[in-house]
Amino acid sequence: MRTIKLVIGYNGERYEGWQSQRNSKTLQELFEKTLSRILKEKTDLISASRTDSGVHALGQTAHFKTKNPLPVARIKSALNFYLPKDVVVFSAKEMPANFHARYQARSKVYHYDIWNSPTRPLFEAPFTLWHPGKLDAASMNRATRHLKGKHDFNAFKAIDGETKSSVREIKRISVKKIKTLIRIEIKGDGFLKHMVRIIAGTLIEVGRKKLKPQAIQQILSSKDRTKAGPTAKPQGLTLLKITY
Amino acid sequence: MRTIKLVIGYNGERYEGWQSQRNSKTLQELFEKTLSRILKEKTDLISASRTDSGVHALGQTAHFKTKNPLPVARIKSALNFYLPKDVVVFSAKEMPANFHARYQARSKVYHYDIWNSPTRPLFEAPFTLWHPGKLDAASMNRATRHLKGKHDFNAFKAIDGETKSSVREIKRISVKKIKTLIRIEIKGDGFLKHMVRIIAGTLIEVGRKKLKPQAIQQILSSKDRTKAGPTAKPQGLTLLKITY
Repeated sequence: MRTIKLVIGYNGERYEGWQSQRNSKTLQELFEKTLSRILKEKTDLISASRTDSGVHALGQTAHFKTKNPLPVARIKSALNFYLPKDVVVFSAKEMPANFHARYQARSKVYHYDIWNSPTRPLFEAPFTLWHPGKLDAASMNRATRHLKGKHDFNAFKAIDGETKSSVREIKRISVKKIKTLIRIEIKGDGFLKHMVRIIAGTLIEVGRKKLKPQAIQQILSSKDRTKAGPTAKPQGLTLLKITY
Repeated sequence: MRTIKLVIGYNGERYEGWQSQRNSKTLQELFEKTLSRILKEKTDLISASRTDSGVHALGQTAHFKTKNPLPVARIKSALNFYLPKDVVVFSAKEMPANFHARYQARSKVYHYDIWNSPTRPLFEAPFTLWHPGKLDAASMNRATRHLKGKHDFNAFKAIDGETKSSVREIKRISVKKIKTLIRIEIKGDGFLKHMVRIIAGTLIEVGRKKLKPQAIQQILSSKDRTKAGPTAKPQGLTLLKITY
């Protein structure tokens, strides 16, 4: 059996997230069907991250096992040939048998992009959250320092998110203003369900002056989801990179 | 009568160009219908540039006359409310009665963007031409120096393009490589039908080493359309700015 790692990009707009579910159009199902067609055998694909419905990726990583000897360059080009235009395979690589895209992931990097202008985004519309009111990016950036490091992020987790521990480490987090775009960049060892989107929604409340930057500390220590901001819409979120 | 200037952006993908034609979906028709609805009077809109089918804009400029006293800020917000998401009005401004978006335009700036990577573009797909083979951007940039200035551009004009004179002045032209993107930027006092796309198609031939940079001189002096390269596809072209 061979183990193949794929690095994948997608525009999440038309998909109901990564993970296969009954009666829905998911990226996992799209990939597994296409791989099975190319490799002539049933193929299971395991991704590092189970992105939500509507979330995009420029560096999702996944692996599958196959008995088919097709060279990796051919697997990549066949996938790009059969897959729709809103999905792309950047690379396909042969890995040691014990490689596991999810369990061996050391960190994940996400962008959350906000289009902060009274005029709606045009070319950027599918990949940004439009927030027409003024946001104070400097305050948002000041607020991030309280999120950095190892914390119990229970207040920043979807109520239905099942996990044993809600302790995670944020290795890097910043808010940058690039013309009309406000970009939240976040790197962590792993994220709870909706965690990045709740962080984005809470930082937007700081940008709107509804919360002070230092309020983040009380929200964290409350461990209470109702104290944090709303879950920001998925279209602003892009999975950039998985490191191993 | 008031004279109002609009600065407009659009994703040209779904439209058959700017200019109204029988039985086709054009931007002029979309805008005139929407303006007539808002102003409660038949409205004609005259643009600086009649962009081709599939061409995009981030700075198209147009004007219309109206008797309606609605403030310009309200005209802008009503347009953005009624127009579809792939069209946007950046500004609406009251102008002197003699202002004319087409006749008074002093220069036009366009980008032609090429995605030069073996892997197809994802987020950039609607706004770039995908060219998977290697292109030499430095040679393409060297070739542009022969195009700069005032020339008879008959060799770079669509055969069915009707105009009295094919003399135009290119004020600025360059080819830049920005990671996997090759961007042709061009500023001129005006452009003949398909001129920017034929220039892009010819520069791509230079990038592919099918033409030498200095061949541009002979093509120009031949005044023969068949000597220049093919007309590059519209999706890479964006109208950036009109100056007055």
